[in-house]
Amino acid sequence: MNDIEAKIKLIGVVEKVNDISVIKIYPEYLEGLTAIEDYKKIMILFWMHLQDNPQGRSKLMTSRPRKRKYGYRGVFATHSPHRPNPIGVTVVELMKVEGERLFVKGLDAYQGTPIIDLKSA
Amino acid sequence: MNDIEAKIKLIGVVEKVNDISVIKIYPEYLEGLTAIEDYKKIMILFWMHLQDNPQGRSKLMTSRPRKRKYGYRGVFATHSPHRPNPIGVTVVELMKVEGERLFVKGLDAYQGTPIIDLKSA
Repeated sequence: MNDIEAKIKLIGVVEKVNDISVIKIYPEYLEGLTAIEDYKKIMILFWMHLQDNPQGRSKLMTSRPRKRKYGYRGVFATHSPHRPNPIGVTVVELMKVEGERLFVKGLDAYQGTPIIDLKSA
Repeated sequence: MNDIEAKIKLIGVVEKVNDISVIKIYPEYLEGLTAIEDYKKIMILFWMHLQDNPQGRSKLMTSRPRKRKYGYRGVFATHSPHRPNPIGVTVVELMKVEGERLFVKGLDAYQGTPIIDLKSA
């Protein structure tokens, strides 16, 4: 009832995860990178596709007990990948841009993860 | 070709925008707030529904000239609401939680904007 159908556009993909990770932006979105090299840090939004299933998206409580006395933690009080909308957000250090590839430090996503947005940070 | 169809779940709505703004979370997602009051700052992801149209979502360059000599800025180097996926991200100060309502400081969204995620910040 409260849902809308929204089409998430994949603008790129995590090509490699390492100390320096590599993000590849698809050709049709390359223009949007203009001047991004002005920033030392950028925010990356990614679609945690491995959790895009009814089980992962219906979890509202973490499965591990909280570290304080009573009960569990709600997913909105965490960065758990299990959440109604499996969107990950990370601020990374932008090391360099080479054409369609961004080289970044500090990305906590898996190889193959779709990228859905980048923002100056 | 690079698009996927993903259903964005609306977990709440911006009820009021002011010095202290009010976010209302829908009853079916309330459990996910458990322990959120432990945090002074939270990250809010919202769906900029007013820009969810082909015009807004096809912009890759800002419409205002950049403040440096040459050209314009790509949307991924900005926080422009015009971008392939109209998702806004803001870190706000969590003032209090009263049942289904979060009272927050620093929210830059319009009244009526759908909320799609909250994370500890």
